[in-house]
Amino acid sequence: MTLQNKVQIITYPDSMGGNLLTLHYCLRKFLMNAVGGVHILPFFPSSADRGFAPSTYDEVDPQFGTWDDVEKIGADFDLTVDFMVNHISRQSVFFQDYLEKGADSAYADMFLSFSKFGPDGISDDDLAKVYTRKPRPPYLEIQRPDGSIERVWCTFDYEQIDLDWSSPLTRSLMRNVLIRLARTSAKMIRLDAFAYTTVEIGTNCYFLEPAVWELLDWLKGCVAPFGVDVLPEVHEESSYQQKLSQHGFWCYDFSLPMLTLFTLFEHTNKRLLEWLRICPRKQFTTLDTHDGIGIVDVVGLMDDDEIERTIETLYTKGSNAKKVYSGPEYQNLDIYQINCTYYSALSSNDDAYIAARAIQFFSPGIPQVYYVGLLAGENDTELLEQTRNGRDINRHNYSVEEIEEEFKRPVVQRLVKLMEFRSNHPAFQGNFTIAETPEDQLGLTWEHAGHYAALHVDLRSYRAELRHTDLTSGEEVLLVL
Amino acid sequence: MTLQNKVQIITYPDSMGGNLLTLHYCLRKFLMNAVGGVHILPFFPSSADRGFAPSTYDEVDPQFGTWDDVEKIGADFDLTVDFMVNHISRQSVFFQDYLEKGADSAYADMFLSFSKFGPDGISDDDLAKVYTRKPRPPYLEIQRPDGSIERVWCTFDYEQIDLDWSSPLTRSLMRNVLIRLARTSAKMIRLDAFAYTTVEIGTNCYFLEPAVWELLDWLKGCVAPFGVDVLPEVHEESSYQQKLSQHGFWCYDFSLPMLTLFTLFEHTNKRLLEWLRICPRKQFTTLDTHDGIGIVDVVGLMDDDEIERTIETLYTKGSNAKKVYSGPEYQNLDIYQINCTYYSALSSNDDAYIAARAIQFFSPGIPQVYYVGLLAGENDTELLEQTRNGRDINRHNYSVEEIEEEFKRPVVQRLVKLMEFRSNHPAFQGNFTIAETPEDQLGLTWEHAGHYAALHVDLRSYRAELRHTDLTSGEEVLLVL
Repeated sequence: MTLQNKVQIITYPDSMGGNLLTLHYCLRKFLMNAVGGVHILPFFPSSADRGFAPSTYDEVDPQFGTWDDVEKIGADFDLTVDFMVNHISRQSVFFQDYLEKGADSAYADMFLSFSKFGPDGISDDDLAKVYTRKPRPPYLEIQRPDGSIERVWCTFDYEQIDLDWSSPLTRSLMRNVLIRLARTSAKMIRLDAFAYTTVEIGTNCYFLEPAVWELLDWLKGCVAPFGVDVLPEVHEESSYQQKLSQHGFWCYDFSLPMLTLFTLFEHTNKRLLEWLRICPRKQFTTLDTHDGIGIVDVVGLMDDDEIERTIETLYTKGSNAKKVYSGPEYQNLDIYQINCTYYSALSSNDDAYIAARAIQFFSPGIPQVYYVGLLAGENDTELLEQTRNGRDINRHNYSVEEIEEEFKRPVVQRLVKLMEFRSNHPAFQGNFTIAETPEDQLGLTWEHAGHYAALHVDLRSYRAELRHTDLTSGEEVLLVL
Repeated sequence: MTLQNKVQIITYPDSMGGNLLTLHYCLRKFLMNAVGGVHILPFFPSSADRGFAPSTYDEVDPQFGTWDDVEKIGADFDLTVDFMVNHISRQSVFFQDYLEKGADSAYADMFLSFSKFGPDGISDDDLAKVYTRKPRPPYLEIQRPDGSIERVWCTFDYEQIDLDWSSPLTRSLMRNVLIRLARTSAKMIRLDAFAYTTVEIGTNCYFLEPAVWELLDWLKGCVAPFGVDVLPEVHEESSYQQKLSQHGFWCYDFSLPMLTLFTLFEHTNKRLLEWLRICPRKQFTTLDTHDGIGIVDVVGLMDDDEIERTIETLYTKGSNAKKVYSGPEYQNLDIYQINCTYYSALSSNDDAYIAARAIQFFSPGIPQVYYVGLLAGENDTELLEQTRNGRDINRHNYSVEEIEEEFKRPVVQRLVKLMEFRSNHPAFQGNFTIAETPEDQLGLTWEHAGHYAALHVDLRSYRAELRHTDLTSGEEVLLVL
């Protein structure tokens, strides 16, 4: 059940052709040789946040398909599925029962009623300490028929009710869910919003040690007997990813998107190389996801000035990129992210975009490509204005016909060819080295069993070249990407 | 996913023992070594024409079994399933919704309402030009509650409503169906009645180029990513099969049945050899199918006199063969076909029948044997009189007990032995040559990698001999079939 060291795709269940069936079709038709895995974002019945407020994990939302459709994709590709570890839908049978029966509900102990923290609940001072990414305190207020008012812990949307992981009941019910997920063809369970699961009044309730390690070990223990691993999603300074890595867990490289923009905007390898020298090796690299481009993730790796300049360049040179799309007018969920497709962030410059992907694919880790990035999609301001949801700028739903058209574009063809190379050349199974180059050049090399693949990028012209051993003759081949 | 070059069986889901379970049993019990593939005729819920008016492809008709039964057969044999490309059931949710809501139906555009062709619909002159195989114009008249009358394109039975393949909606919905079929263990999708899918008013609406190629490429494109191919069913002059072959598609040899009858009736290899020299190599050969013996298929390969004489001989010497069974009294659907089993057409003469099958198996292509032919079945006039359906003469449903009895008959034993030879001798993977013989003899040879198999048929005595290399010793073996 080991994951293949090949490129993976991140996609909603319905964003490539409308459902899981067409997703499978597109993967097989266009990416059979380019991709080793796929992370299908949540496909369960959900009441909000495009799948991230699941009411159950037993079924697949019928608008996307069936479990059978998921399994058939999992038979062809390394499959990653989501477990919304922090919360469950307000519409779930669990919370609905609790709403109705209060403390008498069999599921009462799954949730974090403020009454659990003593007769006076939680003070406003303590609430103010809690790390939230939305400008409101972390609770939902329940008014019951008898006039009583109860507050329940709720960090994200009001449709997403936090689970109390200190409760044996939560553990027992969620273990069943995790076993079910692990028994499918999925090879990886992504733990959405993992860092918010630890609650201790008086702290910021964010990634609290050692509680966070106990929970992570427990979660992994639920799925490991089925050969499945966990991938905690934490959007924070890179030291968090380093810690996950030190504890032996998979993690994300969410700092690469900003670092690569900076590298290309300012024609300097400096910050990127500092990071590549120390970054975790057992990680997934990204340039884009269904969320925005992370800013907090790069704090400590770039100084404030550099971050500020990169953001400014993105807004002045990017295609259709406006600050307002990442602000409260567009319901932005996370003030630490910029809503923009990666292709638009690079001014829809094909050479810069291919250079960015080449840098990602040559960085240590398993590369993930978000479906909009796969198709070199530009900002979808039409959808954005329709929904007034900033993140929809990077969530265009493609029909099969659109996808067929997009695949004909030279930039997409170049990218697919590069993905095929990354997914199949043996050099990537070996050792990573960084070449000595001037600051405005970049040289990254992989070597394994007599094979090598060496990337060279001119950070001024964005020209990217690849020297590698041919798979049959073993001779060197030079490829302009 | 390449098809094995072995004999295939064509059968209804319920004609070998009553359901898919017993079919699987019979295939494994009697034919494991004789057969490489099976074409199971439509097993979906259907409102007419024994499966050819499917209301859905999501389910297997419970009277036959389940998708699991189909998949288990597909795990043992190269599986071919049908896609009724020309039409869908009048009882489908799609057409029922359209019946109810008319132009307001979400599925309206799937069908060919005459209103699509302008306010006056289609003139009688233009309707008269349409190629139909039934003596009625190609439409169904819908009378709506408000008294309005609408005509909808309908080439076959009134339960079979034609699909509008120029509609993006049809494409999108049917693509999902095709992907589902392709994801099963099926290796081949047979495209039933494919030639009727192109509609252009003022023409005969039959196999219109280039539209027919665009559609065929599109259909193949829907299943190809799953390693599945398509087989268009076209009953027409052999030039149509030649065209399909030139475009790289699989096709049927529907001219072989009449040619072989003529060859055996008149003791001459002339017409048969003319055809074998030029026939497509990537084809499926047949002597019998669930339809009748095709006449139009041989136009151009035999002259009118020869065709007429062959039909006359069939009726005078064949067992229980009467012209009336192919006429309107027996609801004949296709005036270009003769309703008769192949064994009865050859007067139930075992030697002639084995000679005919040997000729088929030595002709280029993958041979298909219809289940009644497998059991050397005679005309079922009892069933025919019960149903008054001419084609039921060749559609006897066998119980498992009957099948066990039939397999004891010498002619069936001889046929199975011949099938085992054809399915396993390596010579058939190689080159085909025609021997120089007198006109009343026939010599066909296959050679591959030092192995050969040479058929010799005396067209007067119907004695068929086989010289071939023994698989272990490599020595020549002479076999009287």
